[in-house]
Amino acid sequence: MDFKIAVIKGDGVGPEIVDEGLKVLDKIAQKYNHKFEYTNVLGGGAAIDVTGEPLPKESLDTCKASDAVLLGAVGGPKWDNIESSKRPEKGLLALRSGLGLFVNLRPATMHESIKEASPLRADIVEKGVDFVVVRELTGGIYFGERKTGVENGVEFAYDVEKYDENEIRRIGKKAFETAMIRNKKLTCVDKANVLDSSKLWRKVLNELAKDYPEVELSYMYVDNAAMQLVKDPSQFDVIVTNNIFGDIISDEASMITGSIGMLPSASVRGDDFGMYEPIHGSAPDIAGQNVVNPIATILSVAMMLRYSFKLEEEAKAIEIAVTNVLNAGYRTKDIYNGVGQVVGTKEMGDLIANQI
Amino acid sequence: MDFKIAVIKGDGVGPEIVDEGLKVLDKIAQKYNHKFEYTNVLGGGAAIDVTGEPLPKESLDTCKASDAVLLGAVGGPKWDNIESSKRPEKGLLALRSGLGLFVNLRPATMHESIKEASPLRADIVEKGVDFVVVRELTGGIYFGERKTGVENGVEFAYDVEKYDENEIRRIGKKAFETAMIRNKKLTCVDKANVLDSSKLWRKVLNELAKDYPEVELSYMYVDNAAMQLVKDPSQFDVIVTNNIFGDIISDEASMITGSIGMLPSASVRGDDFGMYEPIHGSAPDIAGQNVVNPIATILSVAMMLRYSFKLEEEAKAIEIAVTNVLNAGYRTKDIYNGVGQVVGTKEMGDLIANQI
Ligand SMILES: CC(C)[C@H](C(=O)O)[C@@H](O)C(=O)O
Ligand SMILES: CC(C)[C@H](C(=O)O)[C@@H](O)C(=O)O
Repeated sequence: MDFKIAVIKGDGVGPEIVDEGLKVLDKIAQKYNHKFEYTNVLGGGAAIDVTGEPLPKESLDTCKASDAVLLGAVGGPKWDNIESSKRPEKGLLALRSGLGLFVNLRPATMHESIKEASPLRADIVEKGVDFVVVRELTGGIYFGERKTGVENGVEFAYDVEKYDENEIRRIGKKAFETAMIRNKKLTCVDKANVLDSSKLWRKVLNELAKDYPEVELSYMYVDNAAMQLVKDPSQFDVIVTNNIFGDIISDEASMITGSIGMLPSASVRGDDFGMYEPIHGSAPDIAGQNVVNPIATILSVAMMLRYSFKLEEEAKAIEIAVTNVLNAGYRTKDIYNGVGQVVGTKEMGDLIANQI
Repeated sequence: MDFKIAVIKGDGVGPEIVDEGLKVLDKIAQKYNHKFEYTNVLGGGAAIDVTGEPLPKESLDTCKASDAVLLGAVGGPKWDNIESSKRPEKGLLALRSGLGLFVNLRPATMHESIKEASPLRADIVEKGVDFVVVRELTGGIYFGERKTGVENGVEFAYDVEKYDENEIRRIGKKAFETAMIRNKKLTCVDKANVLDSSKLWRKVLNELAKDYPEVELSYMYVDNAAMQLVKDPSQFDVIVTNNIFGDIISDEASMITGSIGMLPSASVRGDDFGMYEPIHGSAPDIAGQNVVNPIATILSVAMMLRYSFKLEEEAKAIEIAVTNVLNAGYRTKDIYNGVGQVVGTKEMGDLIANQI
């Protein structure tokens, strides 16, 4: 089959990790007889340098005309002093909203072979970490009204956390569906003892729950969730939450797995289209040194094959290849703990591609 | 000296832990020749049961007329189905705002003798956990405008995160002052890459920084902070943040210490007045069984002596007594790990009082 992929290499380690992702995709194409057509588009700091904008219109248009987007990472200190509306992160937010990607799926999975890398105590880790955070990605305080002004000589600023029932329903459905293909436990993380918006989330989710009688739905306040993730992450299966709580909770979730260089993510919407990227950032301090771990990006490619192209076998092939290479003892520097062999970014990509 | 203390025992384990706090205070009074005058006032579920309101006006008035407030804990499933404006938590929020307590000081300290209770890996814990979260407590999305309504037949709800420069300046000052009497490192946790309100926080803190040239001020995005707390909590000295991020971050911080039954908190304002309470909740499941750990409340009493009554020696005496009792091997059930002797709530209170 033929697929069009828009590729945003981005900044820092972005180009290096995307190259390894594409290397693995090429191997899949060859082995399974598919055609992946890549179009490089500018985004983030790289786009600012060339066009002055973090997401030029042509970039968004090319993404829209593709079947999926593969993104490396954007941002870095180089663009820190640019006026905030033109910063690399704004390109990312514009992509999410411009492409209508309202669902962010972030699996928090511990890789068996590197579980000592988790910052948690061994007896907690022993119980396993395997859940998914379903984060709402195009609403809430990220995209609500905001303003800075002066009232009676006093400067103020505000940001509005706003949701309507339709926004909550569509992300809620995705969360219930995700729970249905997993262990059928859904936890909504909110602050319903304080926020009206959280109360609306509960109302809509309670309604949706009737359509998914097999799913056990529960609610947890976000402050408690921040504690429970550290205390016993094995209690979670699927977490659904708003954009800002999702930002915090999913980063905490990634960290406790100890596998932050290995975690992929998918941003999707109602149809098959999606944007795939590692959860880690652009890490400018190690860029260009052939040391960054490409596995998060390679696993993001697997998610792309699964969700956007419905190529389950090919997705599995990549995941198995990654597991085999790790089991054989190969490690990038970030996950090396004294046992096995350290390899560079390119070598890790080669090893995984060769396993396919 | 003479001090008036308003006492809100509250719900669940509240009455038990407050009784032990008062036991220790009585011992201080006797030994150091002070007079503490206690007035019990109704708050939370206990107040709802009697008056229908979570914070009756008389309660607030008595608190206002006191030198300090000692609070146990409020809330519980019993009041879950009450209309939300009358729930126990609303009493707590009304107390904070009615008393103008805009600063919440939450020390995250690991008690040496129970450090195996931390959910973090031993080599991380080894580096120490000793920082304070300075949380803004009477502003932001907790007290901003909120609304639920219908627009073109679609239900929506919003909550506004709003701050003005004066609110930020007064909490900022407290944070810098706290850093000055500690290790002079202040980290502001925000989401300035997205929120206008966070940008105003940065502007005001940058201005304030000029008055505290010795303090090293840095900024960290809240998602990154949620990760760093787990990865390496030893990097923090003082964290300052808004009301909602403070709620999340300070709970996560408490959990990583493993000492959640032992952590006190203070809610203060510009003068000496303050409200003191354990950071843990009302734990209705273990209420009335003489098993809850009273140490968080007893250490809250020490904070009261230090901050509101300026009785540093007396505060230290309590803290030393707690350390001695722990070093002697006495444990409540929550912090027992097979070594030492388990004692009940009352016995722990007795042991500590006897050490003074
Ligand atoms: C870069 C930033 C705007 C972004 C977010 O807050 O969504 C990032 O933290 C993420 O989680 O993808
Ligand atoms: C009970 C609740 C309203 C409260 C808060 O969110 O402030 C609690 O979580 C706390 O941190 O004291």
